[in-house]
Amino acid sequence: MIIIGEKINGSIPSVAKAIAAKDGDSIRRLAEKQSQAGAAFIDVCASVPGEEELEVLAWLIGLVQEVSDVPISIDSPNAAHCVQAIPLCKKPGLINSVSGEGDKIRQVFPVIADTPWQCIALLCDDTGIPKTVEKRLAVFDTLMQQAAAYKIAPKRLYIDPLVEMLCTAEDGIALVTQTVKALREQYEDIHIVGAASNISFNLPARKYVNQGFIILAMQAGMDSAILDPLNKDIQGLIYATEALLGQDDFCIEYIGAFREGRFGS
Amino acid sequence: MIIIGEKINGSIPSVAKAIAAKDGDSIRRLAEKQSQAGAAFIDVCASVPGEEELEVLAWLIGLVQEVSDVPISIDSPNAAHCVQAIPLCKKPGLINSVSGEGDKIRQVFPVIADTPWQCIALLCDDTGIPKTVEKRLAVFDTLMQQAAAYKIAPKRLYIDPLVEMLCTAEDGIALVTQTVKALREQYEDIHIVGAASNISFNLPARKYVNQGFIILAMQAGMDSAILDPLNKDIQGLIYATEALLGQDDFCIEYIGAFREGRFGS
Repeated sequence: MIIIGEKINGSIPSVAKAIAAKDGDSIRRLAEKQSQAGAAFIDVCASVPGEEELEVLAWLIGLVQEVSDVPISIDSPNAAHCVQAIPLCKKPGLINSVSGEGDKIRQVFPVIADTPWQCIALLCDDTGIPKTVEKRLAVFDTLMQQAAAYKIAPKRLYIDPLVEMLCTAEDGIALVTQTVKALREQYEDIHIVGAASNISFNLPARKYVNQGFIILAMQAGMDSAILDPLNKDIQGLIYATEALLGQDDFCIEYIGAFREGRFGS
Repeated sequence: MIIIGEKINGSIPSVAKAIAAKDGDSIRRLAEKQSQAGAAFIDVCASVPGEEELEVLAWLIGLVQEVSDVPISIDSPNAAHCVQAIPLCKKPGLINSVSGEGDKIRQVFPVIADTPWQCIALLCDDTGIPKTVEKRLAVFDTLMQQAAAYKIAPKRLYIDPLVEMLCTAEDGIALVTQTVKALREQYEDIHIVGAASNISFNLPARKYVNQGFIILAMQAGMDSAILDPLNKDIQGLIYATEALLGQDDFCIEYIGAFREGRFGS
Protein backbone atom coordinates (compact mmCIF):
# COMPACT_ATOMS: atom_id res chain seq x y z
CA MET A 1 0.00 0.00 0.00
CA ILE A 2 1.13 3.48 -0.89
CA ILE A 3 0.35 5.62 2.13
CA ILE A 4 -0.17 9.35 1.72
CA GLY A 5 0.33 10.87 5.18
CA GLU A 6 -2.63 13.11 5.99
CA LYS A 7 -1.53 14.82 9.17
CA ILE A 8 -0.33 18.20 7.86
CA ASN A 9 -3.75 19.59 7.05
CA GLY A 10 -5.09 22.96 8.13
CA SER A 11 -8.55 21.47 8.60
CA ILE A 12 -7.16 19.64 11.65
CA PRO A 13 -7.55 22.11 14.57
CA SER A 14 -4.04 21.59 16.03
CA VAL A 15 -2.48 22.14 12.60
CA ALA A 16 -4.63 25.25 11.98
CA LYS A 17 -3.30 26.57 15.28
CA ALA A 18 0.31 25.81 14.30
CA ILE A 19 -0.22 27.59 10.96
CA ALA A 20 -1.78 30.63 12.66
CA ALA A 21 1.05 30.77 15.23
CA LYS A 22 3.80 30.11 12.65
CA ASP A 23 4.83 27.17 14.83
CA GLY A 24 7.26 25.45 12.50
CA ASP A 25 8.41 22.89 15.05
CA SER A 26 4.98 21.23 15.19
CA ILE A 27 4.87 20.92 11.41
CA ARG A 28 8.41 19.56 11.20
CA ARG A 29 7.57 17.01 13.88
CA LEU A 30 4.53 15.81 11.94
CA ALA A 31 6.67 15.49 8.81
CA GLU A 32 9.40 13.55 10.61
CA LYS A 33 7.03 11.16 12.30
CA GLN A 34 5.10 10.42 9.12
CA SER A 35 8.33 9.81 7.21
CA GLN A 36 9.54 7.39 9.87
CA ALA A 37 6.18 5.63 9.80
CA GLY A 38 6.62 4.82 6.12
CA ALA A 39 4.52 7.45 4.33
CA ALA A 40 5.26 7.41 0.59
CA PHE A 41 4.08 11.02 0.27
CA ILE A 42 3.51 13.74 2.84
CA ASP A 43 0.32 15.60 2.09
CA VAL A 44 0.39 19.34 2.70
CA CYS A 45 -2.92 21.16 2.85
CA ALA A 46 -3.19 24.77 4.03
CA SER A 47 -6.97 25.10 4.43
CA VAL A 48 -6.76 28.87 4.64
CA PRO A 49 -8.50 31.57 2.57
CA GLY A 50 -7.43 31.58 -1.09
CA GLU A 51 -5.34 34.74 -0.97
CA GLU A 52 -3.12 33.31 1.81
CA GLU A 53 -2.99 29.75 0.54
CA LEU A 54 0.07 29.82 -1.66
CA GLU A 55 2.16 31.52 1.01
CA VAL A 56 1.11 28.97 3.64
CA LEU A 57 1.71 26.06 1.25
CA ALA A 58 5.21 27.39 0.56
CA TRP A 59 5.91 27.66 4.27
CA LEU A 60 4.62 24.12 4.97
CA ILE A 61 6.50 22.57 2.04
CA GLY A 62 9.72 24.26 3.17
CA LEU A 63 9.34 22.93 6.70
CA VAL A 64 8.64 19.38 5.54
CA GLN A 65 11.68 19.41 3.27
CA GLU A 66 13.91 20.55 6.12
CA VAL A 67 13.40 17.23 7.89
CA SER A 68 12.22 14.73 5.28
CA ASP A 69 13.15 13.38 1.87
CA VAL A 70 9.67 11.96 1.32
CA PRO A 71 7.97 13.54 -1.72
CA ILE A 72 5.27 16.14 -1.13
CA SER A 73 1.59 15.74 -2.00
CA ILE A 74 0.41 19.29 -2.82
CA ASP A 75 -3.17 19.39 -1.58
CA SER A 76 -5.36 22.27 -2.68
CA PRO A 77 -8.82 22.72 -4.21
CA ASN A 78 -7.15 25.41 -6.34
CA ALA A 79 -5.42 23.83 -9.35
CA ALA A 80 -3.46 27.01 -10.08
CA HIS A 81 -1.98 26.91 -6.58
CA CYS A 82 -1.05 23.25 -7.01
CA VAL A 83 0.82 24.14 -10.18
CA GLN A 84 2.50 27.18 -8.61
CA ALA A 85 3.73 25.08 -5.68
CA ILE A 86 5.49 22.55 -7.92
CA PRO A 87 8.75 24.55 -8.22
CA LEU A 88 8.95 24.72 -4.43
CA CYS A 89 9.37 20.95 -4.19
CA LYS A 90 12.87 19.49 -4.28
CA LYS A 91 11.73 16.25 -5.84
CA PRO A 92 8.76 15.19 -7.96
CA GLY A 93 5.65 14.51 -5.90
CA LEU A 94 1.90 14.26 -6.20
CA ILE A 95 -0.76 16.80 -7.15
CA ASN A 96 -3.85 16.42 -4.92
CA SER A 97 -5.99 16.79 -6.99
CA VAL A 98 -7.71 17.22 -10.32
CA SER A 99 -11.18 16.03 -11.36
CA GLY A 100 -13.58 16.54 -14.23
CA GLU A 101 -14.58 19.87 -12.65
CA GLY A 102 -13.90 23.14 -14.41
CA ASP A 103 -10.51 23.51 -16.06
CA LYS A 104 -8.49 21.67 -13.40
CA ILE A 105 -7.14 19.09 -15.82
CA ARG A 106 -6.26 21.71 -18.41
CA GLN A 107 -4.36 23.62 -15.73
CA VAL A 108 -2.44 20.68 -14.30
CA PHE A 109 -1.84 18.11 -17.04
CA PRO A 110 0.18 20.35 -19.41
CA VAL A 111 2.49 21.34 -16.54
CA ILE A 112 3.21 17.81 -15.33
CA ALA A 113 3.10 16.20 -18.80
CA ASP A 114 6.85 15.93 -19.37
CA THR A 115 7.81 15.52 -15.70
CA PRO A 116 7.74 12.55 -13.30
CA TRP A 117 5.04 14.26 -11.22
CA GLN A 118 2.06 12.13 -10.35
CA CYS A 119 -1.55 13.23 -9.88
CA ILE A 120 -4.66 12.28 -7.93
CA ALA A 121 -7.85 12.48 -10.01
CA LEU A 122 -11.32 12.40 -8.47
CA LEU A 123 -14.17 10.81 -10.43
CA CYS A 124 -16.49 13.80 -10.28
CA ASP A 125 -17.23 16.58 -12.73
CA ASP A 126 -19.29 19.74 -13.09
CA THR A 127 -22.49 17.76 -12.53
CA GLY A 128 -21.24 16.70 -9.07
CA ILE A 129 -20.49 13.20 -7.76
CA PRO A 130 -22.03 10.64 -10.11
CA LYS A 131 -24.53 8.30 -8.43
CA THR A 132 -23.75 5.16 -10.45
CA VAL A 133 -20.71 3.06 -11.30
CA GLU A 134 -21.32 3.64 -15.00
CA LYS A 135 -21.31 7.41 -14.64
CA ARG A 136 -18.14 7.41 -12.54
CA LEU A 137 -16.50 5.25 -15.17
CA ALA A 138 -17.64 7.72 -17.83
CA VAL A 139 -15.84 10.50 -15.93
CA PHE A 140 -12.83 8.16 -15.78
CA ASP A 141 -12.90 7.55 -19.54
CA THR A 142 -12.85 11.28 -20.26
CA LEU A 143 -10.00 11.70 -17.81
CA MET A 144 -7.94 8.93 -19.42
CA GLN A 145 -8.44 10.49 -22.85
CA GLN A 146 -7.01 13.73 -21.52
CA ALA A 147 -4.13 11.91 -19.79
CA ALA A 148 -3.35 10.11 -23.06
CA ALA A 149 -3.36 13.41 -24.94
CA TYR A 150 -0.63 14.66 -22.58
CA LYS A 151 1.16 11.28 -22.61
CA ILE A 152 0.63 10.87 -18.87
CA ALA A 153 0.92 7.12 -18.26
CA PRO A 154 -1.77 5.39 -16.15
CA LYS A 155 0.82 4.47 -13.52
CA ARG A 156 1.31 8.20 -12.79
CA LEU A 157 -2.37 8.59 -11.90
CA TYR A 158 -4.05 7.97 -8.55
CA ILE A 159 -7.76 7.55 -9.23
CA ASP A 160 -10.03 8.39 -6.32
CA PRO A 161 -13.42 6.71 -6.92
CA LEU A 162 -14.86 9.01 -4.18
CA VAL A 163 -15.87 7.57 -0.87
CA GLU A 164 -19.13 8.88 0.56
CA MET A 165 -20.50 8.40 4.04
CA LEU A 166 -21.81 4.94 4.83
CA CYS A 167 -24.63 6.10 7.09
CA THR A 168 -26.67 7.38 4.14
CA ALA A 169 -25.84 4.47 1.81
CA GLU A 170 -28.38 1.79 1.05
CA ASP A 171 -26.02 -0.71 -0.45
CA GLY A 172 -22.92 -0.38 1.69
CA ILE A 173 -19.79 0.38 -0.31
CA ALA A 174 -20.84 -1.59 -3.40
CA LEU A 175 -20.64 1.53 -5.57
CA VAL A 176 -17.02 2.15 -4.55
CA THR A 177 -15.83 -1.47 -4.70
CA GLN A 178 -17.48 -2.05 -8.07
CA THR A 179 -15.85 1.11 -9.43
CA VAL A 180 -12.46 0.07 -8.03
CA LYS A 181 -12.77 -3.41 -9.56
CA ALA A 182 -13.70 -1.98 -12.94
CA LEU A 183 -10.73 0.43 -12.87
CA ARG A 184 -8.34 -2.33 -11.84
CA GLU A 185 -9.60 -4.62 -14.61
CA GLN A 186 -8.92 -1.92 -17.21
CA TYR A 187 -5.49 -0.83 -15.95
CA GLU A 188 -3.25 -3.17 -14.02
CA ASP A 189 -0.75 -0.47 -13.04
CA ILE A 190 -2.96 2.55 -12.39
CA HIS A 191 -3.11 3.61 -8.75
CA ILE A 192 -6.43 3.66 -6.93
CA VAL A 193 -6.64 5.81 -3.84
CA GLY A 194 -9.22 6.55 -1.18
CA ALA A 195 -9.68 9.06 1.60
CA ALA A 196 -10.81 6.38 4.00
CA SER A 197 -12.13 8.49 6.82
CA ASN A 198 -15.01 9.99 4.80
CA ILE A 199 -16.76 6.62 5.00
CA SER A 200 -17.43 6.82 8.74
CA PHE A 201 -18.73 10.39 8.90
CA ASN A 202 -21.60 10.77 11.38
CA LEU A 203 -21.10 7.26 12.82
CA PRO A 204 -19.90 6.27 16.31
CA ALA A 205 -16.67 4.32 16.89
CA ARG A 206 -15.47 5.46 13.48
CA LYS A 207 -12.25 3.47 13.55
CA TYR A 208 -14.05 0.18 12.91
CA VAL A 209 -15.78 1.52 9.82
CA ASN A 210 -12.53 3.03 8.54
CA GLN A 211 -10.61 -0.20 9.17
CA GLY A 212 -13.22 -2.40 7.53
CA PHE A 213 -13.40 -0.04 4.57
CA ILE A 214 -9.67 -0.09 3.92
CA ILE A 215 -9.53 -3.88 4.00
CA LEU A 216 -12.50 -4.30 1.67
CA ALA A 217 -11.23 -1.59 -0.70
CA MET A 218 -7.80 -3.28 -0.81
CA GLN A 219 -9.55 -6.52 -1.69
CA ALA A 220 -11.30 -4.73 -4.56
CA GLY A 221 -8.00 -3.36 -5.87
CA MET A 222 -7.24 -0.09 -4.06
CA ASP A 223 -3.45 0.25 -3.63
CA SER A 224 -3.14 3.63 -1.95
CA ALA A 225 -4.84 5.57 0.82
CA ILE A 226 -4.74 8.99 2.39
CA LEU A 227 -4.53 8.23 6.09
CA ASP A 228 -2.65 8.66 9.34
CA PRO A 229 0.53 6.56 9.07
CA LEU A 230 1.07 6.93 12.83
CA ASN A 231 -2.03 4.85 13.47
CA LYS A 232 -0.48 1.49 14.33
CA ASP A 233 -3.78 -0.37 14.16
CA ILE A 234 -4.27 0.72 10.55
CA GLN A 235 -0.66 -0.12 9.69
CA GLY A 236 -1.00 -3.58 11.24
CA LEU A 237 -4.24 -4.22 9.39
CA ILE A 238 -2.81 -3.06 6.07
CA TYR A 239 0.26 -5.32 6.35
CA ALA A 240 -1.97 -8.21 7.47
CA THR A 241 -4.37 -7.64 4.59
CA GLU A 242 -1.54 -7.62 2.04
CA ALA A 243 -0.47 -11.01 3.38
CA LEU A 244 -4.04 -12.34 3.43
CA LEU A 245 -4.54 -11.19 -0.17
CA GLY A 246 -1.48 -13.12 -1.27
CA GLN A 247 0.70 -10.02 -1.87
CA ASP A 248 3.27 -10.95 0.78
CA ASP A 249 4.56 -14.51 0.47
CA PHE A 250 5.16 -16.19 3.82
CA CYS A 251 4.31 -12.87 5.57
CA ILE A 252 7.88 -11.62 5.16
CA GLU A 253 6.85 -7.95 4.83
CA TYR A 254 4.37 -8.32 7.70
CA ILE A 255 6.98 -9.76 10.04
CA GLY A 256 9.56 -7.17 8.91
CA ALA A 257 7.19 -4.26 9.55
CA PHE A 258 6.38 -5.68 12.98
CA ARG A 259 10.08 -5.91 13.82
CA GLU A 260 10.56 -2.29 12.71
CA GLY A 261 7.83 -1.24 15.14
CA ARG A 262 5.34 -0.11 12.48
CA PHE A 263 2.66 -1.89 14.51
CA GLY A 264 2.36 -4.08 17.59
CA SER A 265 3.43 -3.11 21.07
CA MET B 1 -22.83 -12.84 11.78
CA ILE B 2 -23.60 -15.87 13.89
CA ILE B 3 -21.04 -15.89 16.66
CA ILE B 4 -20.12 -19.13 18.39
CA GLY B 5 -18.55 -18.16 21.71
CA GLU B 6 -15.22 -19.97 22.09
CA LYS B 7 -14.25 -19.19 25.66
CA ILE B 8 -15.31 -22.39 27.45
CA ASN B 9 -12.57 -24.60 26.08
CA GLY B 10 -10.29 -26.81 28.12
CA SER B 11 -7.40 -26.02 25.78
CA ILE B 12 -7.36 -22.52 27.31
CA PRO B 13 -5.14 -22.78 30.42
CA SER B 14 -7.47 -20.85 32.76
CA VAL B 15 -10.41 -23.03 31.72
CA ALA B 16 -8.33 -26.21 32.13
CA LYS B 17 -7.57 -25.03 35.65
CA ALA B 18 -11.26 -24.35 36.36
CA ILE B 19 -12.14 -27.83 35.09
CA ALA B 20 -9.45 -29.48 37.21
CA ALA B 21 -10.52 -27.53 40.30
CA LYS B 22 -14.25 -28.05 39.65
CA ASP B 23 -14.56 -24.27 39.79
CA GLY B 24 -18.11 -23.87 38.49
CA ASP B 25 -18.26 -20.12 39.14
CA SER B 26 -15.60 -19.38 36.52
CA ILE B 27 -17.45 -21.41 33.91
CA ARG B 28 -20.80 -19.82 34.75
CA ARG B 29 -19.21 -16.39 34.46
CA LEU B 30 -17.82 -17.18 30.99
CA ALA B 31 -21.25 -18.41 29.93
CA GLU B 32 -23.02 -15.31 31.26
CA LYS B 33 -20.58 -12.87 29.70
CA GLN B 34 -20.68 -14.54 26.29
CA SER B 35 -24.49 -14.63 26.36
CA GLN B 36 -24.63 -10.93 27.16
CA ALA B 37 -22.14 -10.21 24.39
CA GLY B 38 -24.48 -11.73 21.81
CA ALA B 39 -23.13 -15.23 21.24
CA ALA B 40 -25.65 -17.29 19.23
CA PHE B 41 -24.14 -20.52 20.61
CA ILE B 42 -21.88 -21.20 23.56
CA ASP B 43 -19.22 -23.69 22.61
CA VAL B 44 -18.29 -26.21 25.27
CA CYS B 45 -15.08 -28.17 24.80
CA ALA B 46 -13.62 -30.32 27.57
CA SER B 47 -10.15 -31.04 26.14
CA VAL B 48 -9.54 -33.82 28.65
CA PRO B 49 -8.59 -37.48 28.10
CA GLY B 50 -11.32 -39.47 26.34
CA GLU B 51 -12.48 -41.49 29.34
CA GLU B 52 -13.23 -38.31 31.34
CA GLU B 53 -14.61 -36.26 28.47
CA LEU B 54 -18.29 -37.07 28.67
CA GLU B 55 -18.42 -36.39 32.38
CA VAL B 56 -16.67 -33.02 31.99
CA LEU B 57 -18.90 -32.09 29.06
CA ALA B 58 -21.98 -32.89 31.16
CA TRP B 59 -20.66 -30.75 34.00
CA LEU B 60 -19.88 -27.82 31.67
CA ILE B 61 -23.21 -28.01 29.86
CA GLY B 62 -25.06 -28.06 33.18
CA LEU B 63 -23.21 -24.96 34.40
CA VAL B 64 -23.85 -23.02 31.20
CA GLN B 65 -27.54 -23.85 31.31
CA GLU B 66 -27.81 -22.63 34.90
CA VAL B 67 -27.11 -19.06 33.76
CA SER B 68 -27.86 -18.88 30.04
CA ASP B 69 -30.59 -19.71 27.54
CA VAL B 70 -28.17 -19.58 24.61
CA PRO B 71 -27.97 -22.94 22.81
CA ILE B 72 -24.91 -25.12 23.37
CA SER B 73 -22.31 -26.01 20.76
CA ILE B 74 -21.06 -29.47 21.80
CA ASP B 75 -17.41 -29.49 20.85
CA SER B 76 -15.57 -32.79 20.79
CA PRO B 77 -13.33 -34.70 18.37
CA ASN B 78 -15.31 -37.77 19.48
CA ALA B 79 -18.57 -38.00 17.52
CA ALA B 80 -20.01 -40.56 19.94
CA HIS B 81 -19.54 -38.12 22.81
CA CYS B 82 -21.20 -35.35 20.82
CA VAL B 83 -24.22 -37.59 20.31
CA GLN B 84 -24.29 -38.71 23.93
CA ALA B 85 -24.25 -35.09 25.13
CA ILE B 86 -27.32 -34.13 23.10
CA PRO B 87 -29.87 -35.28 25.72
CA LEU B 88 -28.11 -33.10 28.32
CA CYS B 89 -29.04 -29.94 26.41
CA LYS B 90 -32.31 -28.21 27.24
CA LYS B 91 -32.71 -26.83 23.74
CA PRO B 92 -31.47 -27.82 20.29
CA GLY B 93 -27.92 -26.65 19.61
CA LEU B 94 -24.95 -27.31 17.41
CA ILE B 95 -22.69 -30.36 17.01
CA ASN B 96 -19.04 -29.29 16.64
CA SER B 97 -18.17 -31.22 14.49
CA VAL B 98 -18.32 -33.87 11.81
CA SER B 99 -16.14 -34.22 8.71
CA GLY B 100 -15.44 -36.78 6.03
CA GLU B 101 -13.18 -38.59 8.50
CA GLY B 102 -14.06 -42.11 9.69
CA ASP B 103 -17.69 -42.72 10.58
CA LYS B 104 -18.38 -39.32 12.15
CA ILE B 105 -21.22 -38.50 9.77
CA ARG B 106 -22.79 -41.93 10.15
CA GLN B 107 -22.70 -41.48 13.92
CA VAL B 108 -24.16 -37.97 14.02
CA PHE B 109 -26.51 -37.50 11.06
CA PRO B 110 -28.98 -40.30 11.94
CA VAL B 111 -29.32 -38.93 15.49
CA ILE B 112 -29.98 -35.31 14.48
CA ALA B 113 -31.91 -36.16 11.29
CA ASP B 114 -35.41 -35.59 12.65
CA THR B 115 -34.47 -32.90 15.18
CA PRO B 116 -33.76 -29.15 14.86
CA TRP B 117 -30.11 -29.74 15.85
CA GLN B 118 -27.53 -28.12 13.62
CA CYS B 119 -24.05 -29.36 12.79
CA ILE B 120 -20.62 -28.03 11.87
CA ALA B 121 -18.93 -30.02 9.10
CA LEU B 122 -15.23 -29.67 8.27
CA LEU B 123 -14.10 -30.14 4.68
CA CYS B 124 -11.49 -32.81 5.39
CA ASP B 125 -11.60 -36.58 5.15
CA ASP B 126 -9.47 -39.66 5.81
CA THR B 127 -6.85 -38.37 3.37
CA GLY B 128 -6.36 -35.23 5.51
CA ILE B 129 -6.97 -31.59 4.61
CA PRO B 130 -7.33 -31.28 0.83
CA LYS B 131 -4.80 -28.92 -0.78
CA THR B 132 -7.05 -27.54 -3.54
CA VAL B 133 -10.44 -25.84 -3.80
CA GLU B 134 -11.67 -28.65 -6.08
CA LYS B 135 -10.80 -31.35 -3.57
CA ARG B 136 -12.41 -29.48 -0.67
CA LEU B 137 -15.54 -29.07 -2.80
CA ALA B 138 -15.44 -32.81 -3.55
CA VAL B 139 -15.52 -33.49 0.22
CA PHE B 140 -18.41 -31.01 0.41
CA ASP B 141 -20.34 -32.82 -2.36
CA THR B 142 -20.05 -36.14 -0.54
CA LEU B 143 -21.15 -34.45 2.68
CA MET B 144 -24.21 -32.90 1.03
CA GLN B 145 -25.23 -36.25 -0.43
CA GLN B 146 -25.16 -37.73 3.06
CA ALA B 147 -27.07 -34.74 4.47
CA ALA B 148 -29.70 -35.15 1.77
CA ALA B 149 -30.03 -38.86 2.56
CA TYR B 150 -30.93 -37.93 6.13
CA LYS B 151 -33.05 -34.97 4.99
CA ILE B 152 -30.84 -32.49 6.83
CA ALA B 153 -31.46 -29.15 5.10
CA PRO B 154 -28.44 -27.04 4.04
CA LYS B 155 -29.49 -24.27 6.45
CA ARG B 156 -28.84 -26.66 9.37
CA LEU B 157 -25.22 -27.11 8.33
CA TYR B 158 -22.24 -24.92 9.19
CA ILE B 159 -19.52 -25.69 6.67
CA ASP B 160 -15.99 -25.03 7.85
CA PRO B 161 -13.73 -24.71 4.79
CA LEU B 162 -10.72 -25.12 7.14
CA VAL B 163 -8.47 -22.20 7.84
CA GLU B 164 -4.75 -22.97 7.88
CA MET B 165 -1.94 -20.75 9.07
CA LEU B 166 -1.08 -17.83 6.83
CA CYS B 167 2.66 -17.91 7.52
CA THR B 168 3.14 -21.05 5.43
CA ALA B 169 0.73 -20.03 2.65
CA GLU B 170 2.02 -18.86 -0.72
CA ASP B 171 -1.21 -17.38 -1.96
CA GLY B 172 -2.69 -15.81 1.14
CA ILE B 173 -6.20 -16.99 1.91
CA ALA B 174 -7.21 -17.50 -1.72
CA LEU B 175 -7.90 -21.21 -1.10
CA VAL B 176 -10.34 -20.40 1.71
CA THR B 177 -12.09 -17.44 0.04
CA GLN B 178 -12.50 -19.33 -3.23
CA THR B 179 -13.95 -22.30 -1.37
CA VAL B 180 -16.31 -20.01 0.58
CA LYS B 181 -17.47 -18.28 -2.61
CA ALA B 182 -18.11 -21.59 -4.33
CA LEU B 183 -20.14 -22.89 -1.36
CA ARG B 184 -22.15 -19.67 -1.17
CA GLU B 185 -22.92 -19.78 -4.90
CA GLN B 186 -24.28 -23.29 -4.57
CA TYR B 187 -26.35 -22.77 -1.43
CA GLU B 188 -27.70 -19.38 -0.48
CA ASP B 189 -28.82 -20.44 2.98
CA ILE B 190 -26.07 -22.80 4.11
CA HIS B 191 -23.93 -21.47 6.94
CA ILE B 192 -20.20 -21.04 6.44
CA VAL B 193 -18.07 -20.90 9.54
CA GLY B 194 -14.43 -20.37 10.36
CA ALA B 195 -12.18 -20.75 13.39
CA ALA B 196 -10.51 -17.43 12.69
CA SER B 197 -7.59 -17.62 15.07
CA ASN B 198 -5.92 -20.53 13.24
CA ILE B 199 -4.95 -18.10 10.47
CA SER B 200 -2.47 -16.16 12.61
CA PHE B 201 -0.65 -19.08 14.19
CA ASN B 202 3.11 -18.42 14.51
CA LEU B 203 2.76 -14.72 13.56
CA PRO B 204 3.31 -11.64 15.75
CA ALA B 205 0.51 -9.16 16.57
CA ARG B 206 -1.99 -11.88 15.72
CA LYS B 207 -5.06 -9.70 16.20
CA TYR B 208 -4.47 -7.85 12.91
CA VAL B 209 -4.30 -11.06 10.92
CA ASN B 210 -7.40 -12.39 12.66
CA GLN B 211 -9.31 -9.16 12.08
CA GLY B 212 -8.33 -8.92 8.42
CA PHE B 213 -9.23 -12.56 7.90
CA ILE B 214 -12.72 -12.21 9.34
CA ILE B 215 -13.50 -9.18 7.18
CA LEU B 216 -12.24 -10.81 3.98
CA ALA B 217 -13.99 -14.09 4.77
CA MET B 218 -17.26 -12.23 5.41
CA GLN B 219 -16.81 -10.55 2.04
CA ALA B 220 -16.45 -13.99 0.45
CA GLY B 221 -19.64 -15.24 2.10
CA MET B 222 -18.77 -16.54 5.58
CA ASP B 223 -21.69 -15.85 7.94
CA SER B 224 -20.50 -17.42 11.18
CA ALA B 225 -17.32 -17.59 13.23
CA ILE B 226 -15.99 -19.30 16.32
CA LEU B 227 -14.45 -16.46 18.27
CA ASP B 228 -14.34 -14.50 21.51
CA PRO B 229 -17.54 -12.44 21.66
CA LEU B 230 -16.06 -10.37 24.51
CA ASN B 231 -13.49 -8.94 22.09
CA LYS B 232 -14.98 -5.51 21.39
CA ASP B 233 -12.63 -4.79 18.51
CA ILE B 234 -13.80 -7.89 16.68
CA GLN B 235 -17.44 -7.07 17.44
CA GLY B 236 -17.01 -3.51 16.16
CA LEU B 237 -15.33 -4.71 12.98
CA ILE B 238 -18.00 -7.34 12.34
CA TYR B 239 -20.86 -4.85 12.70
CA ALA B 240 -18.95 -2.33 10.55
CA THR B 241 -18.27 -4.95 7.88
CA GLU B 242 -21.92 -5.97 7.74
CA ALA B 243 -22.79 -2.32 7.07
CA LEU B 244 -19.98 -1.92 4.51
CA LEU B 245 -21.14 -5.08 2.71
CA GLY B 246 -24.65 -3.66 2.40
CA GLN B 247 -26.22 -6.02 4.97
CA ASP B 248 -27.23 -3.24 7.37
CA ASP B 249 -29.12 -0.42 5.68
CA PHE B 250 -28.29 3.01 7.06
CA CYS B 251 -26.07 1.31 9.72
CA ILE B 252 -29.05 0.75 11.99
CA GLU B 253 -27.67 -2.49 13.47
CA TYR B 254 -24.21 -0.95 13.80
CA ILE B 255 -25.51 2.05 15.71
CA GLY B 256 -27.76 -0.16 17.85
CA ALA B 257 -24.91 -2.48 18.81
CA PHE B 258 -22.76 0.53 19.69
CA ARG B 259 -25.52 1.89 21.93
CA GLU B 260 -25.81 -1.50 23.64
CA GLY B 261 -22.09 -1.37 24.41
CA ARG B 262 -21.12 -4.30 22.18
CA PHE B 263 -18.15 -2.20 21.06
CA GLY B 264 -16.74 1.28 21.53
CA SER B 265 -15.72 2.79 24.81
